[in-house]
Amino acid sequence: MTQSVTACLIIIGNEILSGRTQDTNLKHLALSLNELGVKLVHVRVIPDEERIIVETVNECRGSFDNVFTTGGIGPTHDDITADCIALAFQKRLIINQEIKEIIERREAPPEVMETRMRMARIPEGATLIQNPTGGPHGFQVENVFVLAGVPMVMQAMLSTITKERLGGGEPTRSLTVGAYLSEGQIGKKLGMIQEKHPDIDLGSYPFYNEDGYGTNLVMRGTDMVALKAIFEEVHQMILSFGVEPIKE
Amino acid sequence: MTQSVTACLIIIGNEILSGRTQDTNLKHLALSLNELGVKLVHVRVIPDEERIIVETVNECRGSFDNVFTTGGIGPTHDDITADCIALAFQKRLIINQEIKEIIERREAPPEVMETRMRMARIPEGATLIQNPTGGPHGFQVENVFVLAGVPMVMQAMLSTITKERLGGGEPTRSLTVGAYLSEGQIGKKLGMIQEKHPDIDLGSYPFYNEDGYGTNLVMRGTDMVALKAIFEEVHQMILSFGVEPIKE
Repeated sequence: MTQSVTACLIIIGNEILSGRTQDTNLKHLALSLNELGVKLVHVRVIPDEERIIVETVNECRGSFDNVFTTGGIGPTHDDITADCIALAFQKRLIINQEIKEIIERREAPPEVMETRMRMARIPEGATLIQNPTGGPHGFQVENVFVLAGVPMVMQAMLSTITKERLGGGEPTRSLTVGAYLSEGQIGKKLGMIQEKHPDIDLGSYPFYNEDGYGTNLVMRGTDMVALKAIFEEVHQMILSFGVEPIKE
Repeated sequence: MTQSVTACLIIIGNEILSGRTQDTNLKHLALSLNELGVKLVHVRVIPDEERIIVETVNECRGSFDNVFTTGGIGPTHDDITADCIALAFQKRLIINQEIKEIIERREAPPEVMETRMRMARIPEGATLIQNPTGGPHGFQVENVFVLAGVPMVMQAMLSTITKERLGGGEPTRSLTVGAYLSEGQIGKKLGMIQEKHPDIDLGSYPFYNEDGYGTNLVMRGTDMVALKAIFEEVHQMILSFGVEPIKE
């Protein structure tokens, strides 16, 4: 494998661990990062607990080029991500004026305003992550990007982060071809093809449909010439079994 | 929080990290474990790489009561989970006769049979996890349960694992009530209610629909009496704002 710019996602949320909510942020982040030339290589899902969040952030920010967190930046008692990021970096939490003004635009009784103002607290020295939905911003401290958990808001925030901000490289591309052949039939030949192309990630994924039992072969990498070369070999391998390759 | 029997899930699969495949095993496992009296408290998603799989399994099996892995037990070159579990426990990989017979039931040319026979390899001393779909079994080594990645097969294997096998306790129950109130409005009162009931996990989840902007309040715990008590307080809190609670 060629050296890649790496990313880790930390999903903060009891609602994911309890099975109440189906996470979709992982897949969205992964696909977005492919385009930005960053490779998602590690994900953790952890509960809304201060000690665990602080330890996980500190462990991951030392191990990966970029770390994203989702969840826990709303206004209620279980929204403790900002506090935990501040603790992890040993920074004070301060009220950010720009976020404060956004929050104050929507009128509310004093008690409600006080609760909502929790969302204006960010670690001292943090950089904002814009929020195109019009709500409070996310923020970045060093290589840690703190995003909302609600998918619509998370996606909006992520859309404002540029490749340059992440140090991203070449985008990752993929080519896929399928065949009505089992993994058992092609496994050995696939392994030989993979060995010849260490810079391309060759995965095989079985599928079942009304026409039968087959396998999709997915090739992923940043070098289109190398991708096309391995694709051609896989294509020939399928033809050698006397079946028709299925284009995606 | 009361002491719980804990579980960790390790999702092994480049296809999840690349964004190609939407994971659904996390949610299914979480909901199943609730019924078995086991609490899913940690999830990792890691690539199909030997060193990372071995390290992650060894770290997690020492930190949680039960560890589940999904993915990487098929017949192709990227299916290396059995090898990695054997390495993690420093056991030899052996051919399991029961799985071998299942594989041999489906006829195939020698080369295909050889590839498929990879799925009969399990670490010495491992216990089988039955596979009601009729395919090769999963296996258990100490507190590590190795399941398939394909959701239909994973779910079938998991359905054969009893509460006794996991040392499970009381099932986790949840009660939910919603209201057309924002998190900002109820945040402070919710925090006070949560403080009074440390054994119940009280989460708040904003929602939007055509009738407006609201919040679902989810209470989770094993003690139904304690759950009903906090539910009553949350219900009263909603009424105190002059709005009607929404039953799930």
